[in-house]
Amino acid sequence: MISPAPEPVRSVAVLGTGLIGTSIALATRRAGSTVTGWDISAEVTGRAASTGALIPALSLEGAVEGADLVVVCTPIDVVASTVVHALAACPHGVVTDAASIKARVVADVAALAPASDLPRFVPGHPWGGSERSGPEHASASVVDGVVWVLAPTEVTDPAAVEAVRGFVEAVGARPILLPPERHDRLVAFVSHLPQVASTALMGLAATEEADEPDILLLAAGGFRDLTRLAASNPALWSEILLANRDQIVRAIDLYVERLAALRDQIRTDDAPDVERTFGDAKAARLRLSAKPQVRAGVAVFQVEIPDEPGALARITAVLGEGDVNIEDLQIVHSPEGGRGTVHLTVAAPAAADASDVLRGGGYDPIRLA
Amino acid sequence: MISPAPEPVRSVAVLGTGLIGTSIALATRRAGSTVTGWDISAEVTGRAASTGALIPALSLEGAVEGADLVVVCTPIDVVASTVVHALAACPHGVVTDAASIKARVVADVAALAPASDLPRFVPGHPWGGSERSGPEHASASVVDGVVWVLAPTEVTDPAAVEAVRGFVEAVGARPILLPPERHDRLVAFVSHLPQVASTALMGLAATEEADEPDILLLAAGGFRDLTRLAASNPALWSEILLANRDQIVRAIDLYVERLAALRDQIRTDDAPDVERTFGDAKAARLRLSAKPQVRAGVAVFQVEIPDEPGALARITAVLGEGDVNIEDLQIVHSPEGGRGTVHLTVAAPAAADASDVLRGGGYDPIRLA
Repeated sequence: MISPAPEPVRSVAVLGTGLIGTSIALATRRAGSTVTGWDISAEVTGRAASTGALIPALSLEGAVEGADLVVVCTPIDVVASTVVHALAACPHGVVTDAASIKARVVADVAALAPASDLPRFVPGHPWGGSERSGPEHASASVVDGVVWVLAPTEVTDPAAVEAVRGFVEAVGARPILLPPERHDRLVAFVSHLPQVASTALMGLAATEEADEPDILLLAAGGFRDLTRLAASNPALWSEILLANRDQIVRAIDLYVERLAALRDQIRTDDAPDVERTFGDAKAARLRLSAKPQVRAGVAVFQVEIPDEPGALARITAVLGEGDVNIEDLQIVHSPEGGRGTVHLTVAAPAAADASDVLRGGGYDPIRLA
Repeated sequence: MISPAPEPVRSVAVLGTGLIGTSIALATRRAGSTVTGWDISAEVTGRAASTGALIPALSLEGAVEGADLVVVCTPIDVVASTVVHALAACPHGVVTDAASIKARVVADVAALAPASDLPRFVPGHPWGGSERSGPEHASASVVDGVVWVLAPTEVTDPAAVEAVRGFVEAVGARPILLPPERHDRLVAFVSHLPQVASTALMGLAATEEADEPDILLLAAGGFRDLTRLAASNPALWSEILLANRDQIVRAIDLYVERLAALRDQIRTDDAPDVERTFGDAKAARLRLSAKPQVRAGVAVFQVEIPDEPGALARITAVLGEGDVNIEDLQIVHSPEGGRGTVHLTVAAPAAADASDVLRGGGYDPIRLA
């Protein structure tokens, strides 16, 4: 995945200086390159410049003049037009973007730009970021270690891809090559479909609640987990889902097929099939871990703690003092106050240590997985 | 919901002495009543007795002799037959159960018991419990403050309902009356459907993973939230879902309808409708809280912390020392190590305090909701 470093990028222009653009600018400065920046809002350009991330430009043309690489970080609805504009205004530079959807950007750029400009466009997506917004919250750490997808097409110049790959490595991220459609399919499954599943579940329960006022009183940990994403920004998600329309429609269809199959197993009282469906999902979930370095396995403990200020501080202090890193922590409240249950996830090799440390701290951990 | 205390239950028999049965026995002892216990496994009866919770009996008949109240806490597949047996063996006592599904138990008992015994059966469900198992892990705290549903039918004797209600209050739980079908409908939406939705999503992603090995590498917080439940016990869930078959089939059908409607909004590029669907779900999610006392509203903060032992201890200590109770905490790791993001939920009235305390501790909280 990592190739010998290509000729380094020395001069970078960032178009769109919100949180992600300014964060990339900061990481680029840290890597030793010069950065110019422009935003359609001169006020935003000024706020980005005041962070020290970049030299402000008064126009797109002014920003990209002389740049080796242009990084387009605008809102998704103007990414393609900005890329096309940048390719024209910077005839010897490479242009990349940071949009979270790739196929539609690629198609729009191909429809709008001269064919001779297309080899210099390398579609990209730094797969991380932050839920904050605005250049004030920018930080080079936003791109530290994140997976940064490069999604070249058949017409993309391999030298341009290598230039962007070198840039991505220089700013501290991890380049991965994926075709645009495959990228969009992956993001549909691991990001967009969970959002849709959560929103639909919350919407359904809220409707049922109309004549069942107790439904939310009784909603405990599992329901809360499943509906947490439903509190996300509606305008942003509407834009994202429509931009990845074909892949998300396909993902929902496949999800509905799964649900219908499980429903039929239940309706026909097919206990062995229901159990197999649950067993397969359980095995897959246990292989999953948030961080690749703990993919080898995790251990999950259930621990009861008092539901009061300081209770969480105490258990996390006990683990911290015992040098046990918490990979995940979930608070499972009972519907009423008075006590709480915590699910702690640690890397599998740390399981014995975690158990000893917890017992030493007076807790009674139950290993769930 | 709370009525004047009826004549207190003085002698209780628990049939099935696993975790829930033994926990109820401990809470009953605490309330000052005597408890006898029996399990189909004499070895389990002995382990329960060794906790001091109950006087062991060698037979069901021996356990229920002279009892005012019999509580059936067996696995769900033998609840009805055990209830019927207890009604016959204890002709002057009231019998209740602790199964998480009510309509099927009611129907099975009605089919098996003499009609003259039915008024003395009060279907029940202590809606809480623990993910542990075995009498060794029993604790009176398992029933402390939990919602305990009583689901009488038209033939149930109101005096029997009052007796069980008094018992439930005496052991420290909160009785709520719900018809059996309504109970099962509620549990289908807030407990069983989230389990099905999570399992189907994990199963689908695991299948897609077969030719997309990067899918799990890229799976971040949202996907992990949605699939955490998929690691639950397959045999247990198969039994539960089949026992609540009609309600869960209906809930899945309604969920599939919701998903299909959202899919159609996306497919037809209907941005206003997609945004409205997400907005409605967001509003409902923000009304939801784990604990009734914070139903008035919660505040959610995003805070960045280092991904290292002790980091969580420090932030929770800062909040504990500031006397801010954490209602929920979610760790949102980036796909790579090095830094982490935490989502902290506090009751809305504590939001300003939480923000001040976090800033005072050197954190930079962003309020999300």
